[in-house]
Amino acid sequence: MTRERIYLFDTTLRDGQQTPGIDFSVEDKQAIAKMLDEFGIDYVEGGYPGANPTDTVFFEKKRTRRAQFVAFGMTKRAGVSVSNDPGVTGLLQSKADAICYVAKSWDYHVRVALGCTNEENLESISASVTAAREAGREPMVDCEHFFDGYKANPDYALACAKAAIEAGARWVVLCDTNGGTQPAEIREIVKAVIEAGIPGQNLGIHAHDDTGQAVANSLAAVEAGVRQIQGTLNGIGERCGNANLVTLIPTLLLKPAYAERFELGIERDDLAGLTKLSRAFDELLNRAPDAQAPYVGASAFATKAGIHASALLKEPETYEHVPPETVGNSRRVMVSDQGGKANFIAELKRRGIAVAKGDPRLDTLIALVKEREAQGYAYEGADASFNLLARRTLGQVPEFFKVDSFRCMVERRYDANGSLKTVSEAVVRVTVDGEELMSVAEGHGPVNALDIALRKDLGKYQGEIADLSLTDYKVRILNGGTEAITRVLIESQDGTGHRWWTVGVSDNIIDASFQALMDSIVYKLVTNREKVGQAAE
Amino acid sequence: MTRERIYLFDTTLRDGQQTPGIDFSVEDKQAIAKMLDEFGIDYVEGGYPGANPTDTVFFEKKRTRRAQFVAFGMTKRAGVSVSNDPGVTGLLQSKADAICYVAKSWDYHVRVALGCTNEENLESISASVTAAREAGREPMVDCEHFFDGYKANPDYALACAKAAIEAGARWVVLCDTNGGTQPAEIREIVKAVIEAGIPGQNLGIHAHDDTGQAVANSLAAVEAGVRQIQGTLNGIGERCGNANLVTLIPTLLLKPAYAERFELGIERDDLAGLTKLSRAFDELLNRAPDAQAPYVGASAFATKAGIHASALLKEPETYEHVPPETVGNSRRVMVSDQGGKANFIAELKRRGIAVAKGDPRLDTLIALVKEREAQGYAYEGADASFNLLARRTLGQVPEFFKVDSFRCMVERRYDANGSLKTVSEAVVRVTVDGEELMSVAEGHGPVNALDIALRKDLGKYQGEIADLSLTDYKVRILNGGTEAITRVLIESQDGTGHRWWTVGVSDNIIDASFQALMDSIVYKLVTNREKVGQAAE
Repeated sequence: MTRERIYLFDTTLRDGQQTPGIDFSVEDKQAIAKMLDEFGIDYVEGGYPGANPTDTVFFEKKRTRRAQFVAFGMTKRAGVSVSNDPGVTGLLQSKADAICYVAKSWDYHVRVALGCTNEENLESISASVTAAREAGREPMVDCEHFFDGYKANPDYALACAKAAIEAGARWVVLCDTNGGTQPAEIREIVKAVIEAGIPGQNLGIHAHDDTGQAVANSLAAVEAGVRQIQGTLNGIGERCGNANLVTLIPTLLLKPAYAERFELGIERDDLAGLTKLSRAFDELLNRAPDAQAPYVGASAFATKAGIHASALLKEPETYEHVPPETVGNSRRVMVSDQGGKANFIAELKRRGIAVAKGDPRLDTLIALVKEREAQGYAYEGADASFNLLARRTLGQVPEFFKVDSFRCMVERRYDANGSLKTVSEAVVRVTVDGEELMSVAEGHGPVNALDIALRKDLGKYQGEIADLSLTDYKVRILNGGTEAITRVLIESQDGTGHRWWTVGVSDNIIDASFQALMDSIVYKLVTNREKVGQAAE
Repeated sequence: MTRERIYLFDTTLRDGQQTPGIDFSVEDKQAIAKMLDEFGIDYVEGGYPGANPTDTVFFEKKRTRRAQFVAFGMTKRAGVSVSNDPGVTGLLQSKADAICYVAKSWDYHVRVALGCTNEENLESISASVTAAREAGREPMVDCEHFFDGYKANPDYALACAKAAIEAGARWVVLCDTNGGTQPAEIREIVKAVIEAGIPGQNLGIHAHDDTGQAVANSLAAVEAGVRQIQGTLNGIGERCGNANLVTLIPTLLLKPAYAERFELGIERDDLAGLTKLSRAFDELLNRAPDAQAPYVGASAFATKAGIHASALLKEPETYEHVPPETVGNSRRVMVSDQGGKANFIAELKRRGIAVAKGDPRLDTLIALVKEREAQGYAYEGADASFNLLARRTLGQVPEFFKVDSFRCMVERRYDANGSLKTVSEAVVRVTVDGEELMSVAEGHGPVNALDIALRKDLGKYQGEIADLSLTDYKVRILNGGTEAITRVLIESQDGTGHRWWTVGVSDNIIDASFQALMDSIVYKLVTNREKVGQAAE
């Protein structure tokens, strides 16, 4: 049976730009367009050339290889010709392959926002589409507020859609601009549009998540006949966000209800890159990834309940709706107070730590983990600290060096020139092999100063930690207010590119940071010895 | 037309407990049960008495007034009688009004997880339901993995559901336990269940969000005939979460597709307490609220685009799917680089700061806000700092006192007894009314020490800030790694209970905290004068 083609249209760089707290630079846009293009997205909407400097620069070149590069903008204003409309001219001058015009399709908006007649709006749609087509670009029209427009005045909404098709638009996209439409209404209205003579193969859906149903609305529209879905990476977008392509793509490719009927420009095997795509996007935006995101979240395949977990280890399809590897994710059996012993042993084994089931130190370790996690240690996010905790409890970590004391100071004062400056300094005393060493260092802040001072002179271990660097630092205040506990997570990296996370918890942020820094160094020294041991074998 | 009653079943305290990072104490559960009960939820599932100490204690009393208090547990084991099954006994001994048994309804699970025959499982269901009924409790059965079970062996899945109904269960809840079922499948299978003889008025739906459609699946099930929805507050739950009741309730009460056909135990007017309920829950868990959550998120009704915003101010129903006040939320016209001048003036007016449209200082302020926000200042979350920035730019803030210098020190060393201790000390020099004052203080950490030292002696202003206290402290590292910028947000409170947030940004966490602390104090002094001014009028 021939499957029908569904086209994916990404508007991360245009509608996604409306997300609170997000602003893309030209470099950001280049990187994201490349990610989308390489992943197999069909249309990449890059922005609104002419509306702002970043987008105008971005559209000076075509930024995709396979995907259609799309410019967004408004239909021409009433009362002027296309060539006299600077907005449309800007779109046509850009290096876009396709032009996506946003058009009013709700008569209320035509009157209140545009201040022209219904007929003038239809003429603007036709003229704009024609101009794009005649300039050799693929024309498409986003019918703004289509579903509310249809409910208010179905004939006019349809007339807008028809004007676009008849002028030669490749796509007419029905937009649920305020996000309030329900799936059953989507299905009903899409059916009516198709019955009115606009083929499903020319229809698209653009949903928003204001009632938590952007994904469902997109799929409902596809079930009713549309063949283009507009969405964003990780569902970013204004208000509650756009339809999340990272959620839609695996559902379309893996769930029989869709996979048997449709195909995308992405193969099922390519899905293994999905989690990486999603995380790379979050990293570029410096956004904390959503651990509970469908398919790609760190917890999407994590289970807590002890009894669940043991059956899981045997037959995952009893509990998982899709195998995590298909989307590049992994199953996590969480180190938590509800995990059973079997889980724990498996987790330790995974980290290269062997322990017998009957070993009494195992119970000690489990109790210690529960206690520490209740205090705020988050071992799920700090694997190297968990590793060390386990090794110490099972008796396997030497005391390489001892920190006798440290002192951190931050001073803000006027310097000799009368300028206000802040200075951070740390002094650390360590004992290595019986020898006392003292180091002082300055840094951007107290933690940076402490990190540099701590790693400045560790005697005979200095060479081993020379390639150690701190790459990320996260702080979380637990319990809030004055009784706050601070949890610090630190990511470290060595010369081989290997990265690891460590954690520290205290009511004192410097103390918490110190614990995490110590674990980072000790972890490096421990794993160095393992590599040597392995090499020797 | 008589509307049909839909019952809301909250499993925050049971299924929600499986959320990574969440563990409720008995006190937490009491507070949450009270919130749910007062809001009008019909069933509050409190946990699993007998399975863990917290839940056993929690069920020693009935914890709700109006809502049915529900205990969750497993059906009796095969091969023993109900009275010899400690799990069921534990449930019956609890102070629950209703018992919700989880039962296998997928023959695969009966074999692999329970290790008994299909018939034995049916007998377990019947006997368990009967026991609850005879003990005067409302019996209900969660048919685990029902949809997958139905797809694999429809007759057996139906047999399980029927066994429950025939033994007298008030509710049979169809669970999409692994979250992979699609809405069309939900509709189809629910229809089949009803056609097989189980009335919709006895059916419930329990959806998970693994394909981002828990809400849509719940509504699809209702459309197909079920009359109970199970979900959690803010959609918490394991993996990708449960169906979000905070999203479902307003959709059911406000969207005509449902509001005309159904009613809840909650009135439309009660919805005004929804945002508060959602935020109170996040606060109890010390979780950052999801700014983009449907209906209740801080950004759910926030718009960025300048042209959108001016039309919005005139006729909100052109852009909003529901009025934000109906759910206790508010429209936010964001202070951002895409906001127009009209927005800005409105925002200032809202804060009691009047400025004329043509005032050149307004342009200065707008530019300053854009610049600061690009550096990391988040004025949306720090209203008092924005307030001060605006007043300073418009020339209205006196310099009450000047901080000449400060010094913060954290020292970790061995004390006289040989115990390791950490000491944090801060010294602050200020000039008040030409007089130089020095203060020193110790604290939990460097920021706490600085806060106390700063507020220890501010001369003639000391009385005004005596009731000032720091109630929350948030740290966020932007840009990561060693080039990190730290953003600190501080919440302060005074004796009247009034609370406000201030922000500070620096590469040095102490510096950033200092900025936020200063703003907090100055804001208090400024608003004290406004109150006096108003009182004098």
